[in-house]
Amino acid sequence: MAGSTFGNIFKITTWGESHGKALGVMVDGCPAGIDLCEEDIQKFLNKRKPGQSKYTTQRKEDDQVEILSGIFEGKTTGTPISMLVRNKDHHSTDYREISTYYRPGHADYTFDEKYGFRDYRGGGRSSGRETIGRVAAGAIASKILEQLGISITAYSKSIGNVEIDYKNFDKEEINQNPVYMPDKDAAAKAGKLLKEKMADMDSAGGIIECIVDGMPAGIGEPVFEKLDANLSKAIMSIGAVKGVEIGDGFAAAMSNGSTDNDGFKMEQGRIVKTSNHAGGIMGGISDGSQIIVRAAIKPTPSIARTQTTVNKSHEDIEINIKGRHDPIIVPRAVVVVESMAAITLVDMLFLAMTSRMDRIVDFWKK
Amino acid sequence: MAGSTFGNIFKITTWGESHGKALGVMVDGCPAGIDLCEEDIQKFLNKRKPGQSKYTTQRKEDDQVEILSGIFEGKTTGTPISMLVRNKDHHSTDYREISTYYRPGHADYTFDEKYGFRDYRGGGRSSGRETIGRVAAGAIASKILEQLGISITAYSKSIGNVEIDYKNFDKEEINQNPVYMPDKDAAAKAGKLLKEKMADMDSAGGIIECIVDGMPAGIGEPVFEKLDANLSKAIMSIGAVKGVEIGDGFAAAMSNGSTDNDGFKMEQGRIVKTSNHAGGIMGGISDGSQIIVRAAIKPTPSIARTQTTVNKSHEDIEINIKGRHDPIIVPRAVVVVESMAAITLVDMLFLAMTSRMDRIVDFWKK
Amino acid sequence: MAGSTFGNIFKITTWGESHGKALGVMVDGCPAGIDLCEEDIQKFLNKRKPGQSKYTTQRKEDDQVEILSGIFEGKTTGTPISMLVRNKDHHSTDYREISTYYRPGHADYTFDEKYGFRDYRGGGRSSGRETIGRVAAGAIASKILEQLGISITAYSKSIGNVEIDYKNFDKEEINQNPVYMPDKDAAAKAGKLLKEKMADMDSAGGIIECIVDGMPAGIGEPVFEKLDANLSKAIMSIGAVKGVEIGDGFAAAMSNGSTDNDGFKMEQGRIVKTSNHAGGIMGGISDGSQIIVRAAIKPTPSIARTQTTVNKSHEDIEINIKGRHDPIIVPRAVVVVESMAAITLVDMLFLAMTSRMDRIVDFWKK
Amino acid sequence: MAGSTFGNIFKITTWGESHGKALGVMVDGCPAGIDLCEEDIQKFLNKRKPGQSKYTTQRKEDDQVEILSGIFEGKTTGTPISMLVRNKDHHSTDYREISTYYRPGHADYTFDEKYGFRDYRGGGRSSGRETIGRVAAGAIASKILEQLGISITAYSKSIGNVEIDYKNFDKEEINQNPVYMPDKDAAAKAGKLLKEKMADMDSAGGIIECIVDGMPAGIGEPVFEKLDANLSKAIMSIGAVKGVEIGDGFAAAMSNGSTDNDGFKMEQGRIVKTSNHAGGIMGGISDGSQIIVRAAIKPTPSIARTQTTVNKSHEDIEINIKGRHDPIIVPRAVVVVESMAAITLVDMLFLAMTSRMDRIVDFWKK
Repeated sequence: MAGSTFGNIFKITTWGESHGKALGVMVDGCPAGIDLCEEDIQKFLNKRKPGQSKYTTQRKEDDQVEILSGIFEGKTTGTPISMLVRNKDHHSTDYREISTYYRPGHADYTFDEKYGFRDYRGGGRSSGRETIGRVAAGAIASKILEQLGISITAYSKSIGNVEIDYKNFDKEEINQNPVYMPDKDAAAKAGKLLKEKMADMDSAGGIIECIVDGMPAGIGEPVFEKLDANLSKAIMSIGAVKGVEIGDGFAAAMSNGSTDNDGFKMEQGRIVKTSNHAGGIMGGISDGSQIIVRAAIKPTPSIARTQTTVNKSHEDIEINIKGRHDPIIVPRAVVVVESMAAITLVDMLFLAMTSRMDRIVDFWKK
Repeated sequence: MAGSTFGNIFKITTWGESHGKALGVMVDGCPAGIDLCEEDIQKFLNKRKPGQSKYTTQRKEDDQVEILSGIFEGKTTGTPISMLVRNKDHHSTDYREISTYYRPGHADYTFDEKYGFRDYRGGGRSSGRETIGRVAAGAIASKILEQLGISITAYSKSIGNVEIDYKNFDKEEINQNPVYMPDKDAAAKAGKLLKEKMADMDSAGGIIECIVDGMPAGIGEPVFEKLDANLSKAIMSIGAVKGVEIGDGFAAAMSNGSTDNDGFKMEQGRIVKTSNHAGGIMGGISDGSQIIVRAAIKPTPSIARTQTTVNKSHEDIEINIKGRHDPIIVPRAVVVVESMAAITLVDMLFLAMTSRMDRIVDFWKK
Repeated sequence: MAGSTFGNIFKITTWGESHGKALGVMVDGCPAGIDLCEEDIQKFLNKRKPGQSKYTTQRKEDDQVEILSGIFEGKTTGTPISMLVRNKDHHSTDYREISTYYRPGHADYTFDEKYGFRDYRGGGRSSGRETIGRVAAGAIASKILEQLGISITAYSKSIGNVEIDYKNFDKEEINQNPVYMPDKDAAAKAGKLLKEKMADMDSAGGIIECIVDGMPAGIGEPVFEKLDANLSKAIMSIGAVKGVEIGDGFAAAMSNGSTDNDGFKMEQGRIVKTSNHAGGIMGGISDGSQIIVRAAIKPTPSIARTQTTVNKSHEDIEINIKGRHDPIIVPRAVVVVESMAAITLVDMLFLAMTSRMDRIVDFWKK
Repeated sequence: MAGSTFGNIFKITTWGESHGKALGVMVDGCPAGIDLCEEDIQKFLNKRKPGQSKYTTQRKEDDQVEILSGIFEGKTTGTPISMLVRNKDHHSTDYREISTYYRPGHADYTFDEKYGFRDYRGGGRSSGRETIGRVAAGAIASKILEQLGISITAYSKSIGNVEIDYKNFDKEEINQNPVYMPDKDAAAKAGKLLKEKMADMDSAGGIIECIVDGMPAGIGEPVFEKLDANLSKAIMSIGAVKGVEIGDGFAAAMSNGSTDNDGFKMEQGRIVKTSNHAGGIMGGISDGSQIIVRAAIKPTPSIARTQTTVNKSHEDIEINIKGRHDPIIVPRAVVVVESMAAITLVDMLFLAMTSRMDRIVDFWKK
């Protein structure tokens, strides 16, 4: 069935394969009157561009976005915004071999089981390139959040066993190192680790953390369209994500109620929390404090080592996947996590506008 | 907005507050021709019934389900199945005090921010009793899975720092101990821990694990309605859940590609995996092996200790929440996790029936 | 699949069979803070109550609604409102005979083809009693519209070949005659016609018209969630409706552009239309003038005459459906059309709140 | 909010403005394994191409479709099919004048009220060119129906007061005349009428009829996702449609039960109906006979005559819309009605696959 649409009233629909003609996204439900140009989108897309560092693919993806609809005289019109990125650098012939077997850690086998066959070139629809549409849409969602005073900070929290030290936390540092870590020292250690993995023909995983500032309280729709539930879906839908946490997450399972409970206090006439173990969401609704989400990313499945698998003739075989592979997915996925969070927040903010009758009357009586 | 519906074509809609007249659920999209009676539902509901052990509430919730529609001559008719449980044992007067302040760790504050006021009796809609509808619907989903040869096993994997030892894993043991652990020794240790928490006027959290056997390969709709994405949403939507993992989950973030990749091999003429780090889902689609999901549950927020908070007059206050409180949510949530998993699996199985044209032609040509 | 839910963010889900235990509806997405009690609902339900006149069924349906959730201290809480009407007066034994064959003009055959069997008692889910849930939900939608200064007037425009004369139009008259016509003379003629039909063991159809005043311009979401498209779906989903028109409707097909086009002019500083052939909707969006919708209702299919059909043994047979039958559906359907229109308008009003970024910023900056 | 998506599991999402860079559609939920190429789509698009006859616009729209995704080795892969048509022949400068006022019969005013401003070039999103996406998607839906033995015949039933005579009905004739009528004589008369309208600087409307053969019984999901309800929405969502009928439609309102009821009889071992006043749908579910739908199309709003309206400075003005205008929309809308019907039928067929548990077990047990 149709699974390529995300969101309720701010809705994105992505399409495209790694080595097809193009990839893209349609953003529907974007309000009218927002200044928007291709450069706004390109800035976001460039963050996921490969070939930026020695740890990411050398394939030259000159991903230039084209906006095809929904903008007039520099502003969104309220009608669907269609965006497209043409595929350029693809050597489909390279993929003839992998068409015959199932790569471990990839979706080759499951796509074949589901659809009967697959576009095997570069992973087809299951490629990381599928996220181009998410990021292009995320750029628009971010512009909306900005106008509402809401900002998202996303970064690599850990790469393999190298974790950032919050004492060194420096937001400005995130875009200064190839692993998008907010800690210079950790970034250096992570770089060293990745070199070792490459030498070892292996790969590493890591954790991405995403912090939202400025989110008003009251966002999230019990009991199934909760803010945390939708963030989980949004982030788990990204390839290679195997876990999602809100606030203390799995650590909360080891905590005590007396520690985990966030108290309330008055501060400058406003109600604030005395701690934020909950990660800014209580009962599925934002509580006005920072929202904290984390995603566990598995190691890159494409590794240079010999691996065992089966081919389409149902024979046990050994394979060596050719080409140069990234030893890590995490850095490139940072902007994807940020984008999916932004898209979810915008949708949930819009949904929350009808929770009180007095506010609805105010809105329409003007 | 409307947030009380879950699912696409097998759809549940829950309603009801902790101390309202009743709670219930409407199951829509249930196929015709399934034997179903109230006893099928009651069996599931009894698993979440409190007062079953010394670690769960003593409130006598004699939750008797009544099926109001959708069944004729003992079979489902294909029309909506409405189910209701009347609330009986509620002393609303007890709640007058908590109506004046915001309990730490509860959704009191966020509901007030969202809706302007709240039904404060027993937590209203944010109460754990809200899960009655989920479990009643889960009972039906489980019957459907059973007919398709699919079974779910859910249990407490850890309570506080007490974790099961898989060497002792005994499925039969799950329902033999009050903490629903598949390991007798761990259950005994967990019991001891909970007694300590109670003595300490504190509470504990834990992890629930859910294993699915018999799921065919090919289920899950890329790229947003992936099986793992929907399971995450389903489970994160349960109150007190703060994290969700598939397969190795957060551990995968620390692993290497060479370890994390599941190879393939031929076994008795069938393609199987050599390991299952992925937890049965690749590219968002089931791969035919066991599906493994875990949920992190926070400690019970209601604790007997003195806590600091603010009241509605915006004063800093100290509170002591009266009444007897469960020191742990985990055991009662096991059947809720199982139910949400079952509902998700049924919906995704139904959605997957249209992935191949040849199978659709076969279906309709008969 | 699940077909019992209507609406996007103001969402209703109905359930129940004619002779099951009860029928009901769950209204989700209703804003918090609306005064609501059972009497508000009952008033609406009474309009569709049979046994009110000599032209409608004598079955004593003492349809008493019970609100089970979503209300606290006399106000909506923003959580789902579950409402239920118990079935009382049903003599299921009467239906044993009709279980063996397919009644002409009823859904007996299609339900059997779809589901394999059916709850044949009183038509089961395909009974007119299914509309109880729609009307109960419509009562809530109407309260919301009222607060926004929007009102709906629905009535019988024609019964058989008896049509109202707009020169005699008297809104107050609608509830004064058993056929809900706003024209006393036409109502008298219609009454006479219906007596003839009854004497003739036959039945009549008619047209219901629905006028909406006070709808602001700008409501409706191109290109598929247009206001007229959703009204059409809402109204065509009512049993016995075979056609829907907006404004001039089918007459527009015979008109000229020079006549059909509604011009604009300034009136007291506001833009108004010089005519309203469009029925208040242009390009799927409300234009600020009256919205006009009409529904064609087929004659009651249950008639006393001998009819030919087949039985479940696949034999051609002649049947005489026993019992007393209404010679007309139209009057009882008036409040159903009104309810479905109200539900649609509320949903579309809520959806239209995010069409402009400046208004969204205003909303959230407060 | 997002209104550009139609369908539940076979889902289309359209985008694009009359004079933007391009228009297109994304078809999601299309099963894998269908032979599909651009020529299949082009054939359908050509039917709505203007400049084909003297009664339709002379603007040379060389609408060439490009498929960007979802096809591999000539077959659908089950992933989203993105299709695009570049806009070529547009002289935006022509539209500078109409940007200053509201054209009668167009959506200029309502778009401005909704969004605050509009892309006024050629009507922007409210242009008839928006249907390009619908027709491209309709071509795919038609291929699916074909494989299931279902066919759709759509044609002009009437143009102004010229109606076809069913005695002359000739399916082959439909594509032989510029008005798509299945009656040569009527087509000639309609041609004459349209010449008169053009001479008179006026325009005409008409009725499109759509017949579906081969639809199995049992399709349609009570009580809101009924087949007739969804067909109504689909067709009413097309610009210029003001009414929708099923079967006898508005004529049923004037009929008697004894006439309107379709009896059943045995014919060659199968249950068939003795008549088809219902238009193939009973209780919202297909009954196995022909499905009959009609759409009332209003006259072209763009006429050469002087008309009165207001401008953006809120002055009453007289306007003369320049350029050459079609005197009729009906013929070009025939393939649009056919396409929307096809899309709806495919979606409803897919939804109906889960109505019986025994069939689901059969499907998955294979």
